[in-house]
Amino acid sequence: MFQSFKVTARPEQGPPRLAALREELVREGLDGFLIPRADAHQGEYVAPRDERLSWLTGFTGSAGFCAALTHVAGVFIDGRYRTQVKAQVAKEFTPVPWPEISLSAWLKEQLPNGGKVGFDPWLHPVGQITSAQKELNGSGIELMRCANLVDRVWADQPEPPMSPVKAHPIEFAGETAQRKISRLANDLKQAGHSAAVITLPDSIMWLLNIRGSDIGYNPVAHGFAVLHSDGQVDLFMTAQKLVGLEDHLGAQVSVHDPSAFLDAVGQLEGRVQVDPGTVPQIVADALGERMDEGGDPCALPKACKNPAEIAGSAEAHLRDAVAVIETLCWLDAQAPNSLTETQVVTRLEDNRRKDNALQDISFDTIAGTGPNGAIMHYRVTEETDSRLEDGHLLVLDSGGQYLDGTTDITRTIAIGAVGDEEKACFTRVLRGMIALSMLRWPAGLAGRDIECVARVPLWLAGQDFNHGVGHGVGAYLSVHEGPQRLSRVSHVPLQSGMILSNEPGYYREGAFGIRIENLVVVEEAPTLPGGDAERVMLGWRTLTYVPIDRRLIVVDMLTLEERDWLNAYHRDVAEKIRPRLGDDAQLWLDAATAPL
Amino acid sequence: MFQSFKVTARPEQGPPRLAALREELVREGLDGFLIPRADAHQGEYVAPRDERLSWLTGFTGSAGFCAALTHVAGVFIDGRYRTQVKAQVAKEFTPVPWPEISLSAWLKEQLPNGGKVGFDPWLHPVGQITSAQKELNGSGIELMRCANLVDRVWADQPEPPMSPVKAHPIEFAGETAQRKISRLANDLKQAGHSAAVITLPDSIMWLLNIRGSDIGYNPVAHGFAVLHSDGQVDLFMTAQKLVGLEDHLGAQVSVHDPSAFLDAVGQLEGRVQVDPGTVPQIVADALGERMDEGGDPCALPKACKNPAEIAGSAEAHLRDAVAVIETLCWLDAQAPNSLTETQVVTRLEDNRRKDNALQDISFDTIAGTGPNGAIMHYRVTEETDSRLEDGHLLVLDSGGQYLDGTTDITRTIAIGAVGDEEKACFTRVLRGMIALSMLRWPAGLAGRDIECVARVPLWLAGQDFNHGVGHGVGAYLSVHEGPQRLSRVSHVPLQSGMILSNEPGYYREGAFGIRIENLVVVEEAPTLPGGDAERVMLGWRTLTYVPIDRRLIVVDMLTLEERDWLNAYHRDVAEKIRPRLGDDAQLWLDAATAPL
Repeated sequence: MFQSFKVTARPEQGPPRLAALREELVREGLDGFLIPRADAHQGEYVAPRDERLSWLTGFTGSAGFCAALTHVAGVFIDGRYRTQVKAQVAKEFTPVPWPEISLSAWLKEQLPNGGKVGFDPWLHPVGQITSAQKELNGSGIELMRCANLVDRVWADQPEPPMSPVKAHPIEFAGETAQRKISRLANDLKQAGHSAAVITLPDSIMWLLNIRGSDIGYNPVAHGFAVLHSDGQVDLFMTAQKLVGLEDHLGAQVSVHDPSAFLDAVGQLEGRVQVDPGTVPQIVADALGERMDEGGDPCALPKACKNPAEIAGSAEAHLRDAVAVIETLCWLDAQAPNSLTETQVVTRLEDNRRKDNALQDISFDTIAGTGPNGAIMHYRVTEETDSRLEDGHLLVLDSGGQYLDGTTDITRTIAIGAVGDEEKACFTRVLRGMIALSMLRWPAGLAGRDIECVARVPLWLAGQDFNHGVGHGVGAYLSVHEGPQRLSRVSHVPLQSGMILSNEPGYYREGAFGIRIENLVVVEEAPTLPGGDAERVMLGWRTLTYVPIDRRLIVVDMLTLEERDWLNAYHRDVAEKIRPRLGDDAQLWLDAATAPL
Repeated sequence: MFQSFKVTARPEQGPPRLAALREELVREGLDGFLIPRADAHQGEYVAPRDERLSWLTGFTGSAGFCAALTHVAGVFIDGRYRTQVKAQVAKEFTPVPWPEISLSAWLKEQLPNGGKVGFDPWLHPVGQITSAQKELNGSGIELMRCANLVDRVWADQPEPPMSPVKAHPIEFAGETAQRKISRLANDLKQAGHSAAVITLPDSIMWLLNIRGSDIGYNPVAHGFAVLHSDGQVDLFMTAQKLVGLEDHLGAQVSVHDPSAFLDAVGQLEGRVQVDPGTVPQIVADALGERMDEGGDPCALPKACKNPAEIAGSAEAHLRDAVAVIETLCWLDAQAPNSLTETQVVTRLEDNRRKDNALQDISFDTIAGTGPNGAIMHYRVTEETDSRLEDGHLLVLDSGGQYLDGTTDITRTIAIGAVGDEEKACFTRVLRGMIALSMLRWPAGLAGRDIECVARVPLWLAGQDFNHGVGHGVGAYLSVHEGPQRLSRVSHVPLQSGMILSNEPGYYREGAFGIRIENLVVVEEAPTLPGGDAERVMLGWRTLTYVPIDRRLIVVDMLTLEERDWLNAYHRDVAEKIRPRLGDDAQLWLDAATAPL
């Protein structure tokens, strides 16, 4: 079993740990210490050793931080976690609505002129510290580099992960590491940079065509790398992880112990390119004036998948669809009120595991029935596990990590007889999802320039949803990958080969939730007769092929084009997936993909 | 007659003027001088005295600048003017595609380290100079303040405009100047600012409820103002313009000669708010460290029209519609090939002048027939005047300045028998215009978050247009008003009371152009049953009521909702405007607004 339903943090564990931390504050002469959720690699998931925020506070959300002062400990959480934080932290912790209240504004309120707040310079990106310092300017409050005080008081802190790294086969990677290194080194040279410091594990995995398993769900190994403009790479990763990879890494890559990383950075000459949004403050300190904020050189090339990666992802999606469809078929055969959320999660995982290529699930499955579906980032536990009741909508958001690709799919399923209001909302979400699927747009536009297309049908009914329309997805890498996004904050132009999710939703608190998600890949749209001759247009190719619940669609609300799209999509689902299914599922699929 | 069709600049005038300017460069020890299109007030239109760019170069476009060096003179023009500039300037001037090539990049190419380029610090906003200087950093090229060298060699330069200022009646302004001054002064106080320097004429007009006629098309008078946080205003404007306005301006406003402006700015104490995008460099120099880049305090309040301004604008649009409809009725009665563009412009102006409230047209009417319609900013002259041929589309974009409001309307009209391709494109533009008209969206979004809605029907056919979807419009003020815009570069949230144009288009070079434009005002959308309870939604109220040419619509391409919208719009046109028309126009309107 991959996914656990255990509750991992208890509110009562926090206060004694906070007390111990405060003794360290006194010892260091500090008025506070910052505990981020992030590790030195700024990924979405962290190793058990790096779960400092939840160890100290009890809060297990995927974003947020704690500012532990001598008299108050603020837990900064965004809108998604307002309810969860209250249940998870003891009264010794004060939830702070963030980003409405910024760290600096809160510190100015809590501390006098001269206040000193410590932070671990490995865990905060330089951009974050720079902007916080700027905001604190004139307040007399100082942010001070110091040792990690949580690590000092965490007696049984786990060791760093030490999982073996594997070579990622060229048939899935599509380009040799040698070639990637050479072309990125050439880009550095063109930009007049001597080197780039890379601290994001998925960038390092992509560049060197390797994969690891240091943390859950993401096939990455922790480490750092320096890419030199002469085409050499210094990889700072415990040698024990890399046994047997000498030939794969080749002469271009020199392996060093991670402890040598900072000294090596300090000795770099010339302009050194880093991503200020992710590179730790301590790296910036080591570089000083030599730092150039040009970004992670792997980010954009990694985002633009090559034909082998796209073909691999498409194939992974077809196999993944079998697991999802077998689960939906089974689910439909169960009477309402007979199942709970965890049973659905377990069954879906069992079905995915039948595929030997499955490496892991790509995130904790979200299975939210009825009111739980309205909690956007719901993760079922033994305590919240709820029964699928007659009339519920079940939001089922899940994915798999396969050697050839990463999947992420959401379907919303009718349990028994569902009300008209739910169906009308579902149809609006579907219309938005179809409108975006059908879209073509001029090359050069970013996610923010087109994302509203998926919201308009809801807007016209006075409705909306409070999350982005889609996120980037890696090729057997992170299920949430930048810089591509379908979001109002994303200004990076969409380019051919980028994989994104198309996942509008709708959430009515205390009642129901809806989300429909396909993965799609950007590609150049074929020229149309009468289309502008000189204008390059982009569009999508769909990767996900699983039926959309016909019982929830109000057919009269669809335009003819939308109905045609859905019928064609279901025809494709049947054609691609039916031959891979067992007899029962084939029959189920025939009904589920019948034309509307 | 308001609009002239004369050609105002001749290429051959440029070279001797450039030679004279270069003598001044030598005298000043400079390697170049910058000649912007703008005056000290950064408006879209300038007085004859400030037409330095066209006087020197011959180029008459509404945006661009010249960098006159000793050996080369670059004329920087954007995509709209690439063709026009070639016809207007002599070979001694070199067109430079801008912003693809920036001023600083070009200067670095043309000048050695140590090069000195002069500029008149009254004519360039501080933000523009700051960013140019930043880009030139390290090149050794310096931008140097100096006297205006064009003014020195322009022997018969016109005098500054000196037109009388009138009080703007409270029934149209909707709020007394005293109240506006008090609430804006209070905002300044809240922000900790002692004063704001205001250099935009339309801001000063709005704040003091006055209107002028110093430049064409915009009812503004040139001047500067300082708004103090204690509720006093210093107005720097020639007293001669303000005769008889003593009572209207009242005790809160002190009038000074414009020559006293800079000294007064220099003597201000505390933090002083300015808009770095429009305030001249020389004002920033006078303020030094006291400058705060908080923006023009009038910009946003002016953009959010009050009920009196909205009612006035609505009424102005009804009267303006009569003039446009009478023109369309007359136009339809003429045989193809019998009229030229200037005749249409003249007839439309004559019809507008029948309304005694008309103060001016709001810009040079664009009447582009056939291929001329594809030139987005076409302005007909005696030389380009073209015949309306059978099969042409005529783009007719015009507006009026009335005491109660400013109008701006575009209709595209079929001349004789129009081809199917033109009709299909017209219908796509119309669908986009209707989609935006019907839209409602969550409060807090900016123009860039919703503008693509008007483009999607074109995108789906592989088409698009290279201008924004809409611009802000003033209340008997500028026809192009910020900060509200329907554009990918506009991040200012749309708010109730903002008036904007909704004007998608389509342009096929050498063949035809299409644009359909209504003005609309943002208002809170009524709550819908089932809509999100806590979510404030905004929508539009339409101001423009003139039929859209039914002969150009491919009805089968419209959705049912779109056809319903159009029929309802035409019903409203008939209801509101028919009673105001003569007999012929009534009959014409009945046919033009018949249901599809």
